[in-house]
Amino acid sequence: MSMGSAAAASLIVRLELANSIATFGQVAKTIGEAGGDIVAVDVIQVLKSVAVRDVTIQAADAVHGKRIVDALGAQPGVKVVNVSDRTFLLHLGGKIEIHSRIPVKNRDDLSRVYTPDVARVCMAIHEDESKAFQLTIKRNTVAIVTDGTAVLGLGDIGPSAAIPVMEGKAMLFKQFAGVDAFPICLDTKDTDEIVRTVKAIAPIFGGINLEDISSPRCFEIEDRLREELDIPVFHDDQHGTAVVLLAGLMNAAKLVGKELADMRVVVTGIGAAGVACTKMLLAAGVREVVGVDREGVITRRRAYDNPVWAWYAEHTNEAQLEGSLDDAIAGADAFVGLSGPGVLRIEHIQAMAHDPIVFAMANPSPEIEPEVAEPYVRVMATGRSDYPNQINNVLCFPGMFRGALDSRAVTINEAMKLAAAKAIASIVGDEELNEYYIIPSVFNREVSGAVSRAVAEAAAASGVARRERAQPPA
Amino acid sequence: MSMGSAAAASLIVRLELANSIATFGQVAKTIGEAGGDIVAVDVIQVLKSVAVRDVTIQAADAVHGKRIVDALGAQPGVKVVNVSDRTFLLHLGGKIEIHSRIPVKNRDDLSRVYTPDVARVCMAIHEDESKAFQLTIKRNTVAIVTDGTAVLGLGDIGPSAAIPVMEGKAMLFKQFAGVDAFPICLDTKDTDEIVRTVKAIAPIFGGINLEDISSPRCFEIEDRLREELDIPVFHDDQHGTAVVLLAGLMNAAKLVGKELADMRVVVTGIGAAGVACTKMLLAAGVREVVGVDREGVITRRRAYDNPVWAWYAEHTNEAQLEGSLDDAIAGADAFVGLSGPGVLRIEHIQAMAHDPIVFAMANPSPEIEPEVAEPYVRVMATGRSDYPNQINNVLCFPGMFRGALDSRAVTINEAMKLAAAKAIASIVGDEELNEYYIIPSVFNREVSGAVSRAVAEAAAASGVARRERAQPPA
Repeated sequence: MSMGSAAAASLIVRLELANSIATFGQVAKTIGEAGGDIVAVDVIQVLKSVAVRDVTIQAADAVHGKRIVDALGAQPGVKVVNVSDRTFLLHLGGKIEIHSRIPVKNRDDLSRVYTPDVARVCMAIHEDESKAFQLTIKRNTVAIVTDGTAVLGLGDIGPSAAIPVMEGKAMLFKQFAGVDAFPICLDTKDTDEIVRTVKAIAPIFGGINLEDISSPRCFEIEDRLREELDIPVFHDDQHGTAVVLLAGLMNAAKLVGKELADMRVVVTGIGAAGVACTKMLLAAGVREVVGVDREGVITRRRAYDNPVWAWYAEHTNEAQLEGSLDDAIAGADAFVGLSGPGVLRIEHIQAMAHDPIVFAMANPSPEIEPEVAEPYVRVMATGRSDYPNQINNVLCFPGMFRGALDSRAVTINEAMKLAAAKAIASIVGDEELNEYYIIPSVFNREVSGAVSRAVAEAAAASGVARRERAQPPA
Repeated sequence: MSMGSAAAASLIVRLELANSIATFGQVAKTIGEAGGDIVAVDVIQVLKSVAVRDVTIQAADAVHGKRIVDALGAQPGVKVVNVSDRTFLLHLGGKIEIHSRIPVKNRDDLSRVYTPDVARVCMAIHEDESKAFQLTIKRNTVAIVTDGTAVLGLGDIGPSAAIPVMEGKAMLFKQFAGVDAFPICLDTKDTDEIVRTVKAIAPIFGGINLEDISSPRCFEIEDRLREELDIPVFHDDQHGTAVVLLAGLMNAAKLVGKELADMRVVVTGIGAAGVACTKMLLAAGVREVVGVDREGVITRRRAYDNPVWAWYAEHTNEAQLEGSLDDAIAGADAFVGLSGPGVLRIEHIQAMAHDPIVFAMANPSPEIEPEVAEPYVRVMATGRSDYPNQINNVLCFPGMFRGALDSRAVTINEAMKLAAAKAIASIVGDEELNEYYIIPSVFNREVSGAVSRAVAEAAAASGVARRERAQPPA
């Protein structure tokens, strides 16, 4: 197990000691000899043959902690069951839970929330299915659906290993927008099966947030679910990123005094997020987008097996540029990186138009290190929290779903995404706007409300709302 | 909409008034003329063409309320959008919600519960899948799965209309045993599809509670899921009822001084619950069970198309009784009704052995009215809350899943169900036991703890527990 950050200097090690072989005295000696301090010992379980104890140990740092744990594991009769640090302890038992909104204290309560009175509520919905939005959790509840194939930077780690991320996402939904979100982690990677399953479980949900599903399956899954369900379906990795990117780019353009319509934007990494960002840029009025992937500039002069690239060739690069990033970047106004570390070099930035805007969003290592790029760029943004201008989906998805739920939208369309991007950008006032502040902090309390209002209004204006005016949940 | 109980005398009526046709003055006049009192008026929405108002009206009773609402609906330009009573108001927006167990207040919190630190937790589960029980909500979370085909006494009302019942069940899981349960209401009635869907969404759940799925599909669905999943799958309508019935019958037998092994029990209504109750009785040592359905006594002398009845004929009615209930009931010690009203008559009870025990569990109308049976029975139980001795699943399922989750059982077996029945029965002390108190109240706080401990012990003793000792969740 990786010990990771500095917080791991205090460890809790669960040890199973075979009573006939190992004594706790020997364990204490091992820890002491390895330079650790025992802070606490908790007896978890004592059986005939084994004893289980949690030993809290202070170590100098993570590497030192690892050495102590290795020493313990090497001792005969000692089994290291588990090593916890603060992050792991926070995750014990999971991060979310179900609460009742009403207590069931007596027979009268029970008869109203359950049998027999609940039958009247059921029949009201049976007679008019739209009443499910009033009389059940549907109006405030979103499924976070993943198959665990593209989790963070970790790739295909499977549905169980994806749960902690989805629980975290559910926390953010609640914290930032009061949305109840429940993780659905699917034990299948089959596109048809995923579509079937999400449709089958849809009745109780007011929206579907697709998450960390690998490309190209994510496109078909989203398209089919959007087609077949009458609730919003939103692949956050694509559209959340695109919305927040656009918000940042709008403010960056304003700062350097350029119009989006006049800018040439080069996008590297034409996967799910790259395509979504490009569509968002086009919808926002950018006319010149040039995509670059492993095989170079994407151009309609070439034929692509990958249907996504074929689409891309058809809809971008009006000027029919060819070659590599070296060719595409010359004279470009903005760089949008969704690729990997080292893709962008200083010479590239030097070849760009005046006041270069660089969004190097590869995670955890951007296309160029901000320290390296700094002297050459006018505005720089990354996906990281330890540099200014973090492009973070958290700015979008809570408010996006809040607005979609409040307006009972049947879908999330381009108008709603554009409205969300403008709302996020608007949080940074003209007098505040500067090179190091083009996008609000994820902890800015105004963001989610502004996004939800804008999204609900756009839903109504574009005819996809089932309620004329957004109202907060009761 | 049915106005139902006395609580409906105070109504909230949501009216949409076409501004050009109807004024609120006219609405007030209509309510007054119909004999109603306006308690309050809340403006919900005012648009150019229509105004929406919530009018709280006091009416003499439900019928009167209905008359007022009808009068309003008949008025030109007035649309009755909705009529709410207290039960409906309780259900507004649903009855459960998702809470975060940890606040996300700052960047440090965010980095631990979400990216980047959550990646280490994900990888720990990726390396050892069993860690999902420690580091996610799996260890405390149950899916309440229905297809809405057999909801309460309402029948096939569909997945959306079933939501209020499933939310109510989730509340009871939490209230009585601290179990987090989330409703999964399936938009399919296809057996294969239901099995596939539940398997696909299983990774985040520590158990599956099947609910209100019609017979005979419920048998195959449960059997296949039990076979294919490594978490407990429990069809509450069958096994919950059976466990609580057995608990009641144990105490009733004790009261009349009979041994289960010496009793003849007649069961009417050989559907899902009837079969499950019979299996439970046999497992508890009852040797003579006789089943009666529409075609009469089930006997191995006849051939049945229904595979459930064929099984039943094979495993019950050792004495090969034939005929109707009239024949089966003569000399029987106990009657267990899972059929319908009017099935049991006074003459039947008079023909039973001494100290007749009658469990008339048809809902909402028992096989015989308790008032009618009273002079002839020794012990009587029903499924209703307004008579003594209510056989209510709430006594079983919260503690059953608590015990199964605490012991990380891979299944719920007969030993665990028997243990649960004994635990429920044990709550009624020998000195308390009497004809009107053979089963504890659903609000008895001791029940769920006793059941969960007994279930966890039985899981360990029968080798299906993944943890040696049950521990409360952190």
